[in-house]
Parts: sequence; structure tokens; C-alpha cells
Amino acid sequence: MPRLDPRLGAQLDFLLTCDRLKAVQRTTWLHDGTRPENSAEHSWHLALMALTLMDCAPAGTNGARVVELLLIHDLVEIGAGDLHFDASAEAHAQQAQAEAAAAKQLFGLLPEPQRTAFLELHAEFEAAQTTEARFARALDALQPMLLTWAGGGLGCAEREPQLTATRLRALKEPRLRDFPALWTLAQAVMDTAVEAGTLPA
Amino acid sequence: MPRLDPRLGAQLDFLLTCDRLKAVQRTTWLHDGTRPENSAEHSWHLALMALTLMDCAPAGTNGARVVELLLIHDLVEIGAGDLHFDASAEAHAQQAQAEAAAAKQLFGLLPEPQRTAFLELHAEFEAAQTTEARFARALDALQPMLLTWAGGGLGCAEREPQLTATRLRALKEPRLRDFPALWTLAQAVMDTAVEAGTLPA
Repeated sequence: MPRLDPRLGAQLDFLLTCDRLKAVQRTTWLHDGTRPENSAEHSWHLALMALTLMDCAPAGTNGARVVELLLIHDLVEIGAGDLHFDASAEAHAQQAQAEAAAAKQLFGLLPEPQRTAFLELHAEFEAAQTTEARFARALDALQPMLLTWAGGGLGCAEREPQLTATRLRALKEPRLRDFPALWTLAQAVMDTAVEAGTLPA
Repeated sequence: MPRLDPRLGAQLDFLLTCDRLKAVQRTTWLHDGTRPENSAEHSWHLALMALTLMDCAPAGTNGARVVELLLIHDLVEIGAGDLHFDASAEAHAQQAQAEAAAAKQLFGLLPEPQRTAFLELHAEFEAAQTTEARFARALDALQPMLLTWAGGGLGCAEREPQLTATRLRALKEPRLRDFPALWTLAQAVMDTAVEAGTLPA
């Protein structure tokens, strides 16, 4: 590693460690069905969705904060990996523990006060209390539906043979219903997939 | 495609088209030398660098705008592809034409006033006049150096046999010298690579 003042050196160490998010494979596949998505490009797509769909958020929502939350929300997967959205409650609890440890380690690379600021961003996303965090989580729930079902569900029936629209609605509605335009979009995508025969009712 | 009100349908079309940025391969490889980077994960990394290194920008720089510029700056590569940073002036001129056409087509998918806002973001990045655009372009010049040379230049000597530190300095300095901390970082990375023997002087 280059010799640098400690603050800049620590930031470089953090940014190079973050490069590993590009190797974290998600269960969602790209829209064209060629390969699974990774968590770094997923984070970019979410931030772009936030810029594009910000008028679906309530007036007064801090759009810059939504983007910040989305840019860092999956970094803990560098230590903890990605989890399927329909995993068991036990698996989700184990994942939460692994992610908390990963957050401490990864953001611990940063100098203060940045370390605290990034840990607070991560905690805000996980707590899902602020409008910004809830809108960010709604986009995070919507994006894989766009990739998988809006374009005809390429290969999805083979990858997710047990998934039904009923199950998908039950899993997605809690994150999406507070943002009517996003929930309308999600429902239209599911209806299209059911009509096309790529998602069982 | 789902049946939606025209505005939301147009935004969905745009966001699904943007998924193709994940298939645009860059000439830079990931830090661990496993594969080339794609332009979507590169855009994410740049936005994260902006969050992390914002104290390297002059006081008063609009950080949220820098992030927006970086999130959309490479979208035109969906139509135009990526170009090596040391390509000829003629290749750069052809690329600029292809990117202008791609911007018109891609951002043309969006409803107004969003279409104009995104076209303005893209034009601001390309014009390199505002502090935000210049800082975004400095990060864009720095990031491949971090991936390629900060970690020991894994496989780089094979991929870029003709590149020297002298040439690299001449290419990178115009974008970086106005931001002293970033230029210090870039120089430290190059010095390290020369000392390690992964970049000829």
C-alpha cells in the first residue's frame, strides 16, 4: 500500500476493501438472463432508481440521503454474503448478526468522524424508521421484481420454481404499500408475469 | 411490459434499459485481478468514493450533485461502449459523437422535465466547468489507478505492457492537480507501483 497520511491511507484501505462487493453474487439475475447480478451493480441500479423515481416519495423526503443509504446498504455483504428474500426467519436472524459484525469491521477501517457517520447510515437503513430509509428499502424490494418479471421472467421459472405471485405479494407488500406509485408498479409487474405464464398465480 | 400510466411506464422502460450498463466491460480489472470491471459497478464505486473523499473537494462543493453526476456519467456507454483512457484523439472525438447520440436516445426515454434534467447532468459532467463536474472527473481518473496499482498491479504488466508512470502522470495530472489530496494519492499509488516493479518508470 502507498505511504500516505493516516487519514487518506485509511480511506484508501476502505475503498479497496469495498471493491470486494463486486464479487458478492445475488440471487437475482440480470434483465437479459445472462448471469446473476452482483451487489455493487445492484447498489448502483438502486441509487439510479432513487434519482429517477424520487417523485414517488412523499414531499420533503431527502433524496440525497436516500441515495447515500442505498450506496452503502449492501456493503456489509462483503463479510456476510447475500440472503434470498424468502429465506427463513432463523436465517434472517443469523444474517442480521453477521451483518452487524461486518459493519463494525468494515466501517471501522474509516477515520472518525466518518466511521460514525457511515455506521449511522447503515443503522438508519436497517432500522427502517425514517422516510428516507423506508423509501430506500421499498426500492430495494422493487428492483429485483423489475429485473426478473418486467422483462418476461427470463429463466426465472427454472430458478424459482416454488415462487407464486401470492407469496411474492405477501413478501413485498409490507415494504412497498406506503409508497402507492411503487406498489402500483410492483403489482403491474406481477400481473404481467402471471398473464405471461412466467409466474404462477 | 406492464400496463402503467405513461409517465411511470416510461421511467420503467428507462430503468430496464439502464440494466444494460452492467454488460459494458471496461479496460480496468477488479482489484483482485479476477475479471474486468463493468461500467455499472464502476459507477457505484465512484459514487462511494465521492461520499468517502468529499473532504478532498473545495469547501462549498455540492456533494449530492457530485454523486448524481457519477451515477449517470457512464450511461451513454450503453450505446457507445467504453474507451481506453490512452486512446487516440481521433478515437476520443468519435467516442464523443457516439456518446452524444446515445445520450439523446437513452435520456429521451424519460418523461419531461426529467429528460431535460438528466441531459443537463450528462452535459455538466462532459463540459467539466463546474467544481462538481471537475471533482467527479477527478475521481473517475483516480479510481482505475486504485484498482490497478494500489494493490500491486495484479496482471497489469501483461495487460498494459507499454504503459509507463511518466505517461500515466501526463494523462492523469490535468484531471487531478486541482484537488491536491487526490493528486497526492494518485502520485503515491504510482510511486508504489514503480517501486514494486509493476509499473515501468
